[in-house]
Amino acid sequence: MSKINVRDALLETGMQVFHHQGFNATGVQEIADGAKVPKGSFYNYFSSKDAFAVEVIDLYARTSSTLGILLDVTLGDATARLHLYFDALIAGRKQRSFRAGCLLGNLSTELADQSELVREKLAVSFADWSRVLEDCIRQAQHAAAIDDRIPAATLAALLLNGWEGAVLRSKVDRNDDALQQFRVLTRELLGPPKA
Amino acid sequence: MSKINVRDALLETGMQVFHHQGFNATGVQEIADGAKVPKGSFYNYFSSKDAFAVEVIDLYARTSSTLGILLDVTLGDATARLHLYFDALIAGRKQRSFRAGCLLGNLSTELADQSELVREKLAVSFADWSRVLEDCIRQAQHAAAIDDRIPAATLAALLLNGWEGAVLRSKVDRNDDALQQFRVLTRELLGPPKA
Repeated sequence: MSKINVRDALLETGMQVFHHQGFNATGVQEIADGAKVPKGSFYNYFSSKDAFAVEVIDLYARTSSTLGILLDVTLGDATARLHLYFDALIAGRKQRSFRAGCLLGNLSTELADQSELVREKLAVSFADWSRVLEDCIRQAQHAAAIDDRIPAATLAALLLNGWEGAVLRSKVDRNDDALQQFRVLTRELLGPPKA
Repeated sequence: MSKINVRDALLETGMQVFHHQGFNATGVQEIADGAKVPKGSFYNYFSSKDAFAVEVIDLYARTSSTLGILLDVTLGDATARLHLYFDALIAGRKQRSFRAGCLLGNLSTELADQSELVREKLAVSFADWSRVLEDCIRQAQHAAAIDDRIPAATLAALLLNGWEGAVLRSKVDRNDDALQQFRVLTRELLGPPKA
């Protein structure tokens, strides 16, 4: 394998394994085995397991942001796109039978107090995600399609954090109750201006 | 120490340590050391680390439910009590400088796929918590103090899951932004009936 391939294979494997069993339950040996490279080479590419997690978060955020195309502000009807986006997120959860959850959420609860490096990366990743939602919501507010009593940035945070809570709950309940309830929330918060 | 004291000391220690560093990062040895008992005696009281976690969740739920007195349906003005309750939850998070998070939420993301025993206990604990909120919300809806377009059970789930998401986010951001935004959500969802 070329250097780039080894690095990518380690990150891809790390993303899968961290997503399914978390950070602390996963050893560097297991990641190296999964990527079919010797354990020693892990440290040729990453200075520590924490530094590796930061790059895994980056890869996950990039992979997940593919869906963000649905929120692209150059497309029309921002409200319809927001609802489409949340439907797509829910479909993704169903496809995985509500398991694994959101890797950002999982690493947040597990590592925020354990690694300052990881905590800072997670904070930036959530802020980036929230901004994409905020831009789309603001566009809908400007078009007077969504009530603007609550600022777009606050609505984006409520939807993002509400989503994280719903994913957490559906992982525990292993059904889509919390996700359907979350759709009630999106309809409440993204409703048209009140007369 | 008496048998009951050893058991309680192990559970108290487990609750503290799991809350601060999670389940997989904590060994039985560390819990036994913290409780000042020999490691061997851990297995006299608990058949496995998973079974121990189930009892820790029970202890945490009982400890946390003390605040539930604020939601007691025999007291007056259900809406005021709901707002008081969320203020108290937020004050608790500030007191801990936004660290540790909610133990139920932490164990959910970390263990729901790893231990069926723990997953089921978490599902029941969240359902119990949601029911306390639901009863108080229903009381306020009956008094026509809260809009009843959305059923009390759904509102309770949205608030509970929204709370879990807000706690997760404030743990990552290490500030109260997400908690203050959550207060916007409570005011939205617990508003008076629309004319």
